[in-house]
Amino acid sequence: MEQYNLLIGDVITICGTFSFAVSGAFAAMQKRLDAFGVLIVAFVTAVGGGTLRDLLIGATPVFWLKDANYSLLIIVTAIVAMIFWKRIKSLKITLFLFDSLGLGFFTILGVQKGLTYDLSPGVCVALGTVTGCFGGITRDILLNNIPLIFRKEIYATACILGGVMFLILRYWGVDDTVVKVTSVAVVFLIRIIAVKYKLSLPRIY
Amino acid sequence: MEQYNLLIGDVITICGTFSFAVSGAFAAMQKRLDAFGVLIVAFVTAVGGGTLRDLLIGATPVFWLKDANYSLLIIVTAIVAMIFWKRIKSLKITLFLFDSLGLGFFTILGVQKGLTYDLSPGVCVALGTVTGCFGGITRDILLNNIPLIFRKEIYATACILGGVMFLILRYWGVDDTVVKVTSVAVVFLIRIIAVKYKLSLPRIY
Amino acid sequence: MEQYNLLIGDVITICGTFSFAVSGAFAAMQKRLDAFGVLIVAFVTAVGGGTLRDLLIGATPVFWLKDANYSLLIIVTAIVAMIFWKRIKSLKITLFLFDSLGLGFFTILGVQKGLTYDLSPGVCVALGTVTGCFGGITRDILLNNIPLIFRKEIYATACILGGVMFLILRYWGVDDTVVKVTSVAVVFLIRIIAVKYKLSLPRIY
Repeated sequence: MEQYNLLIGDVITICGTFSFAVSGAFAAMQKRLDAFGVLIVAFVTAVGGGTLRDLLIGATPVFWLKDANYSLLIIVTAIVAMIFWKRIKSLKITLFLFDSLGLGFFTILGVQKGLTYDLSPGVCVALGTVTGCFGGITRDILLNNIPLIFRKEIYATACILGGVMFLILRYWGVDDTVVKVTSVAVVFLIRIIAVKYKLSLPRIY
Repeated sequence: MEQYNLLIGDVITICGTFSFAVSGAFAAMQKRLDAFGVLIVAFVTAVGGGTLRDLLIGATPVFWLKDANYSLLIIVTAIVAMIFWKRIKSLKITLFLFDSLGLGFFTILGVQKGLTYDLSPGVCVALGTVTGCFGGITRDILLNNIPLIFRKEIYATACILGGVMFLILRYWGVDDTVVKVTSVAVVFLIRIIAVKYKLSLPRIY
Repeated sequence: MEQYNLLIGDVITICGTFSFAVSGAFAAMQKRLDAFGVLIVAFVTAVGGGTLRDLLIGATPVFWLKDANYSLLIIVTAIVAMIFWKRIKSLKITLFLFDSLGLGFFTILGVQKGLTYDLSPGVCVALGTVTGCFGGITRDILLNNIPLIFRKEIYATACILGGVMFLILRYWGVDDTVVKVTSVAVVFLIRIIAVKYKLSLPRIY
């Protein structure tokens, strides 16, 4: 069971790393960087959130230093993204979908790591939000874009709601895999729906 | 006594967190971010300096992960700031005052933490300066402003002088509370006076 | 021998710190910052790469907190750079040369630290690249320049090739000092040649 849970954890990390690597690679290609620039941006985007999470918690050496497979995964992903670049019709939508997916995966990973370290529920949600958002923020700062997080649509709110959902389902004793899949889906769907229907938070001031 | 010192330490952290949360919230409102953007910028500004300090020292999990009250304080502060936004006549001055206050509190916290870890005096002052300045730098980079630290007026210099003052008073055996209050006041006043009288460092080159 | 190796390690750290401090100071002077701004940018550029390396690995307190001499070295370097500013004919070339040198030194330091922590070869090279590039990236972001790493010429590629060279020579049992000097030279020369002959990576997409 322990083994199995670890496996699920790995699957989520892999999916999140992959999603953010794709989003980083595509954002870099939009800016016409050379092959290496694409690789670097993909790398930073993919490891950014998890690295900040591990640093804040004190789980060093950070995850991608312990296991070379993450670097390998990112390199292969970036190369494949570059090769298939021309065949993808809507780059903007692809980038957006993968950014939203990565957001979901990393938020849950952050919340979960917080629980492992016995942090209080509110703090776990904050950690999840920071973990989810940081990769994309770094990508946008590096490429001199306005961070997605500050555009009109709901962004961090999706992370918070997903994180809260995770904690509630877990409290209710729902099966672990179901909890994780549901929470990732919540973040992903809230983000998609917010953009599709142009939902945004009101300015309360 | 130990207890009492801890209390003073907490008071300073709370005041610093509060001041930077206000400055972050106001800077974000100036840029017309939505409610959540305001919250995120307030959070990053308020925890930025202390987080970097804890990471550099190796005091992980960082302070706001250990105690959920900091997150709560920042959220409440940001909401109150948004509600009172319209009643405040000069936003620019309010932002400036709170930024200067936060600068003072976090500088002293950085110097103090350095002493706890037996670092040499010069390094303590450097750590205090980094701690004090980092929150504001992150806020300015996120909002795409020119960092305050690079504008004409004295900024980091105030931190250094405050840090040196702290070490001197402490060396003289002055009462701990007096040392802390005086040092925070020094940073704050130097910054205020520098801006009021447009003092700036000469370019020696 | 142990002692001697430590010495070489220190020499490399000192040279890297010095090189990046010069490059930071000159970049800040190009932007006409005041004396203190120059000092801060020199400091951040010089300690940036090594700080990130120590944080990722978990070697805290980070190197410049443990030893005040680094701060001293940076301050002296920045002051000397400001004094000699007018006598240097081509600021742009000087900045470029020192940036390339620092890149070499810090890449090797990163790879080496990775080996000390028993990380796998690929990960060591990645750590070296991150360590080498981070100081310069921070400098460029602070000064609102387009990061050098994203310009057309080869940059991170030089770090990777230097890191691989380091591991190969070490595997062959070459003398430690020779390994280090050669690897630093490889990074430096690849960077110089790439800029001189305008070599750049092809876009494979």
